[in-house]
Amino acid sequence: MTTSLPTSAQPASPLGLPSPLGLHRVLDPPGVLPQAAWRLDPSPAIAPDEIRVRVDRLNLDAASYRQLRETYAGDPDKIRAAVLDIIATRGKMQNPVTGSGGMLTGTVEEVGPHSPLGLTPGQRIATLVSLTLTPLAITDALYRWDGLSEQIPCEGHAILFGRSIAAVLPDDLPTPLALAVMDVCGAPALTSRVVKEGAVVVIIGAAGKSGSLSAAAARKAGASRVIGVVPTDAEAQLLRNPVTTQESPLVDEIVVADARDPVNLAAKVEQAGGPADVTVVCVDATGCEGGAILSTKQGGTVIFFSMATSFSAAALGAEGLAADVTMLVGNGYVPGHAEFALDLLRSTPPVRSLFERRVTA
Amino acid sequence: MTTSLPTSAQPASPLGLPSPLGLHRVLDPPGVLPQAAWRLDPSPAIAPDEIRVRVDRLNLDAASYRQLRETYAGDPDKIRAAVLDIIATRGKMQNPVTGSGGMLTGTVEEVGPHSPLGLTPGQRIATLVSLTLTPLAITDALYRWDGLSEQIPCEGHAILFGRSIAAVLPDDLPTPLALAVMDVCGAPALTSRVVKEGAVVVIIGAAGKSGSLSAAAARKAGASRVIGVVPTDAEAQLLRNPVTTQESPLVDEIVVADARDPVNLAAKVEQAGGPADVTVVCVDATGCEGGAILSTKQGGTVIFFSMATSFSAAALGAEGLAADVTMLVGNGYVPGHAEFALDLLRSTPPVRSLFERRVTA
Repeated sequence: MTTSLPTSAQPASPLGLPSPLGLHRVLDPPGVLPQAAWRLDPSPAIAPDEIRVRVDRLNLDAASYRQLRETYAGDPDKIRAAVLDIIATRGKMQNPVTGSGGMLTGTVEEVGPHSPLGLTPGQRIATLVSLTLTPLAITDALYRWDGLSEQIPCEGHAILFGRSIAAVLPDDLPTPLALAVMDVCGAPALTSRVVKEGAVVVIIGAAGKSGSLSAAAARKAGASRVIGVVPTDAEAQLLRNPVTTQESPLVDEIVVADARDPVNLAAKVEQAGGPADVTVVCVDATGCEGGAILSTKQGGTVIFFSMATSFSAAALGAEGLAADVTMLVGNGYVPGHAEFALDLLRSTPPVRSLFERRVTA
Repeated sequence: MTTSLPTSAQPASPLGLPSPLGLHRVLDPPGVLPQAAWRLDPSPAIAPDEIRVRVDRLNLDAASYRQLRETYAGDPDKIRAAVLDIIATRGKMQNPVTGSGGMLTGTVEEVGPHSPLGLTPGQRIATLVSLTLTPLAITDALYRWDGLSEQIPCEGHAILFGRSIAAVLPDDLPTPLALAVMDVCGAPALTSRVVKEGAVVVIIGAAGKSGSLSAAAARKAGASRVIGVVPTDAEAQLLRNPVTTQESPLVDEIVVADARDPVNLAAKVEQAGGPADVTVVCVDATGCEGGAILSTKQGGTVIFFSMATSFSAAALGAEGLAADVTMLVGNGYVPGHAEFALDLLRSTPPVRSLFERRVTA
């Protein structure tokens, strides 16, 4: 189950009183959002709308872990000491150099009477908001962590606000698989919202995690044709039906093309039955904006999920092509996104197979 | 009149044959879009869907002119020689350092029989696609240009493709005023599309050019309340009714706030009648993503028109705030945008007054 507070975007209370955004936990500098704060208050006592979680694992953001490993030349003791120091100093695990965090898993320990998250004590959850805004305290000195990977087994507690996002870990899926799905669950949820019955949908990066889930979401939303774009034959192979080797169970057409070459991409997409009513960009390469726009019909929509997207390249690219397309910034949060994505994985064997191969690798 | 080809996004013809995107004018490297090309073919003979324009003025992009002025220490002869060299070498005015171009004005000279732009010889027009993709040749050595501003009086010709965008310069408005409106005309057009009857609309940067036009567009689209955010009292004064000094003829409420401070901005917007159904970001400052998201209702929409918008700050900001908001990349092209914006200016005296003060200054 995914939980969130579906009401006003505003802090419910003046500063200092409990706020669903956690403003009352901000110690320094006062008045900023928890993510922007230097230091949070991780006290275990909860406000009426908060939840305390017994943490069992931190999953550091890859960029953060890499920075720590490089700074301390891979020395596990120094890396461990650095992480402990960050958490003790800041009341959260936000790498001061990269600014990034990660996520955690744990067990719900205490639920405030006014918590809107719908969680109950004993549930095993993953947080879908960043560690950069989650009050956190560690009590075991991270002694079980070897310092050699971004997965940190640990003991301690974390606080969820009224407006945090957490998802209950499913019993029927291995945790690494569930976490991999939750990591990209915004993409299929938004794709499902945007795609209408009968639409032609192009998925750029269709053999990836967010791409394969988005392809399944497009199909489920009634797309008449799903065209999967991949950069290489090896990626195309991931999409093919292992039995017939001719067709893909996930997409109607596979296009092997460099998404950074707009003219070539658009021509190949057209041959495959495009242009698209909806194009979903799921590939983390720079320079894909023009190709996505040119592969989309006038009046169509491009959803950019890649963090490598350049805002100005998208805006100026559409103008330069006189392209009347709606361009959406892929919001990682859509209510119910984690549950929706997990259900897609369960109900779409080729997606599950693709995830299992990628998670293992 | 604004003109464009409202059909497929695809190149209509294989490379080498006339293409509405101008692919047949690309000399080097072959196969890329005209904007990405190093060199275009500016030959005056036109394809059946092209138009040749007799150019009378180039308006260089500010960043491009600044780079040239700094490189040549303000020496007019050297700056002039550099611009001539760029145009002669590249067949277009695209500064190789900044990558930017600008726009031009001129008179329609010859219209191909299959041109979809709806223009006729003798009409005075401005191009709304960038000089970076417009084939251009100069014949007067720019002798009338003093090199001291980005406005270049000149003689020569330019080519419009089937899918270029150009707007006829109106007879009833001074050209600098019309050009200032056309420069930002995508913002009011998209605002008008998104705002529904009865919506609460927040305009961040309401006293600017795109902001004031977007405020007028929101009002015309039936907004029940338009809240204008400005950074200073001086900007607020631009929005106030010069007669009563109490009210604004353009917005219902004026909020003076730093848009880079999300908590404070959202609180002030709420006091003014927010949060918004639609928030329009028109201010060219970095770091406004969180404030815009937090000032918007769950289920609402943020339109980012600022080129200072960070894609990742918007995407991660919404996720961190558990904000279920639709976020749009402001597309500078919406069919009919120039005519729509010019009509707004004509029919909204406070917008015109604001533009006249800004264009003069």
